[in-house]
Amino acid sequence: MGIVVQKYGGSSLADADAIKRVARRIVEVKKAGHDVVVAVSAMGDTTDDLEDLARGVSPLPPAREMDMLLTAGERISMALVAMAISDLGFTARSFTGSQAGVITDSVHGKAKIIDVTPGRITQAIGDGHIVIVAGFQGVSADTKEITTLGRGGSDTTAVALAAALGADVCEIYTDVDGVFTADPRVVPHARKLDRVSYEEMLELAACGSKILHLRCVEYGRRYGVPIHVRSSFSQLEGTWVTNDPQAPSQGDTMEQPIIAGVAHDRSEAKITVVGVPDKVGEAARIFEALAEAQVNLDMIVQNISAAATSLTDISFTLPRTDGQTAMTALARIQAEVGYDKLLYDDKIGKVSLIGAGMRSHPGITSKFFGALASAGVNIGMISTSEIRISVIVDESVVDDAVRATHTAFDLDADEVEAVVYGGTGR
Amino acid sequence: MGIVVQKYGGSSLADADAIKRVARRIVEVKKAGHDVVVAVSAMGDTTDDLEDLARGVSPLPPAREMDMLLTAGERISMALVAMAISDLGFTARSFTGSQAGVITDSVHGKAKIIDVTPGRITQAIGDGHIVIVAGFQGVSADTKEITTLGRGGSDTTAVALAAALGADVCEIYTDVDGVFTADPRVVPHARKLDRVSYEEMLELAACGSKILHLRCVEYGRRYGVPIHVRSSFSQLEGTWVTNDPQAPSQGDTMEQPIIAGVAHDRSEAKITVVGVPDKVGEAARIFEALAEAQVNLDMIVQNISAAATSLTDISFTLPRTDGQTAMTALARIQAEVGYDKLLYDDKIGKVSLIGAGMRSHPGITSKFFGALASAGVNIGMISTSEIRISVIVDESVVDDAVRATHTAFDLDADEVEAVVYGGTGR
Repeated sequence: MGIVVQKYGGSSLADADAIKRVARRIVEVKKAGHDVVVAVSAMGDTTDDLEDLARGVSPLPPAREMDMLLTAGERISMALVAMAISDLGFTARSFTGSQAGVITDSVHGKAKIIDVTPGRITQAIGDGHIVIVAGFQGVSADTKEITTLGRGGSDTTAVALAAALGADVCEIYTDVDGVFTADPRVVPHARKLDRVSYEEMLELAACGSKILHLRCVEYGRRYGVPIHVRSSFSQLEGTWVTNDPQAPSQGDTMEQPIIAGVAHDRSEAKITVVGVPDKVGEAARIFEALAEAQVNLDMIVQNISAAATSLTDISFTLPRTDGQTAMTALARIQAEVGYDKLLYDDKIGKVSLIGAGMRSHPGITSKFFGALASAGVNIGMISTSEIRISVIVDESVVDDAVRATHTAFDLDADEVEAVVYGGTGR
Repeated sequence: MGIVVQKYGGSSLADADAIKRVARRIVEVKKAGHDVVVAVSAMGDTTDDLEDLARGVSPLPPAREMDMLLTAGERISMALVAMAISDLGFTARSFTGSQAGVITDSVHGKAKIIDVTPGRITQAIGDGHIVIVAGFQGVSADTKEITTLGRGGSDTTAVALAAALGADVCEIYTDVDGVFTADPRVVPHARKLDRVSYEEMLELAACGSKILHLRCVEYGRRYGVPIHVRSSFSQLEGTWVTNDPQAPSQGDTMEQPIIAGVAHDRSEAKITVVGVPDKVGEAARIFEALAEAQVNLDMIVQNISAAATSLTDISFTLPRTDGQTAMTALARIQAEVGYDKLLYDDKIGKVSLIGAGMRSHPGITSKFFGALASAGVNIGMISTSEIRISVIVDESVVDDAVRATHTAFDLDADEVEAVVYGGTGR
């Protein structure tokens, strides 16, 4: 009887038939007595098509106008979903991000939500309508300009609406059945998780799981919004992301598993600064230069210096897309820092073992490394948090490493559970 | 040094190259020292594509959502035009109808502009930007809903902006070189008019000339906005639509011609109500029924009644699209009115001779009818205004009638002037 917020991505809205299917799903929830608010992405390839159009007229389009252009995508899909609902005999009202009260900062292309003032939504709900909201977009607080939220924007819109409306649940519809213990394309016997904590989901997202974007999970955790990740192609229960994965739900009373899953990420590169004088301030100067160049670092490792030379090597990983920027920034300070040379390696991958249960279970690390060794996988770098262990390995053995780890921690299902439908990033 | 408002239609914005060409034109005007505000339609076939999408999800989509959907079209084109301008080193800001302050009533699909509050436009002009505005759309005064203006909407947006901003001129760019003495596709030797009065342009538009929509000309006349109709494919002067076509402009000092042009219209049908009792109130009952059915009538003719029977016939013309509705409405009152039968004919055409000069020149009618007779054209119905004579003829002889009339009034140019590029209706 409460408010249910749903989010459908572009692959769930690929064409007229897909939109009608989504409309039927939405209407089912309304029929069950809930108020329904739906955030939608742009249809299938719309965003790519619009970006192509932009490139056709300008190699470097202004960000303000790019946002104006791209927001047409959700406008189209939200109107079509509202029409399909109306065709089923229910009334729907679509609203742009601006109309829905999604207030952001003014950073075009990757705006952050700073407030949600859903007056028109609550009014429409009160009038008995199903509400469709354009995901991925908002309006800036100061300049009243149209903004887009960047990657993960539509999921974040949905969770932000759920928080602002005090919804019972935010259902994120996607093209897989939920969050799995590993990417089912790599591990066919990966198992769907019934529940996962915000914390674990954050680590999974940060370590390469693409099912939910980091910022959407962060938003959900901050406001305590229960997120239900599920497939728009089936009626199965998906994965609940909540504060307390122990809470009984759907009759399940299993012990919390030690390991939530194995994530992997092939989007990073590694840079090694060789022969850095082991003096106070040298490392700081290096990371200062990288920060000035707006490079986001992930793992950082500094070896102890060789006694004979007082020189050390510093390695770090970063998104491959930042590789050129970082190398240029470092080359510029070579004379100043006096390092020997730079090594760049983008043939790496990161494999991460994640689980809130590892806090209280010793021996996880040795079991993880043992599994990697048995699979013949060499470890390049190591990084840990309280609920995560990540290693950098050669890109070519990422799949082997994931599978060996998955099996070693008894995560394999008895049969293949996942069907992958092919997805989008927005 | 004043403000120039321009409007580009869908055929002028068909693809990236066309958009870049439009951007160069806009920038030329800015370089010449003017402030420029541009209203744009949706690109080429965008509107048709969006309508197809809508039909794919619902046979009868709600008008509110249809407006939400269709307004994505201008949003895309305005952002692309702004990008192309930025690529030329000038700054542009695009605004939706709502942002531009185009305030309408709440009739979705054919809203009327009731006010223009261009605060953001004047601000952007003050900041030195070129302003691009989405044509065809606005926001309703009371409900703050997105509306579309219906046919001729983008032209009307441009003229309304020009009026609100006190612009020097509203340039309507199209795919022909201006307003011609007849449709160049029918009369290859039709001549471009350098100037035409609002009055004549209104009659031309009402009688089938598709170059400017009636409501845009009406708006221009009401607020005294000089409208310059010209081609986006050439640099030629087009046709000026102004209050006083006598005013010397561009060095032209010709006498005002008697005839502005010959228009034709193949979109009407004729209904004849046969055997209406010639009593007070019978005709009123018929037109009351048609008004209740929201049928727009054009020409109406009632013959004198035959003395022997006291019965009369009433004929009228109406848009073919209203034909079915009108026939149904009339059939419903047959018993009440007691007429004999209904005749429906949609194989008709209307040919109109228009010119403010005919007020003071006798003999125009006889010359017109003489030309038709020489061409073997039979006249079905006749209707006149102070500056127009229209006749209904058989559809098959419309072209002959137009050509014969055009020649009889010495309107033929020495050589073919017009190039027709193919157009759109919005």
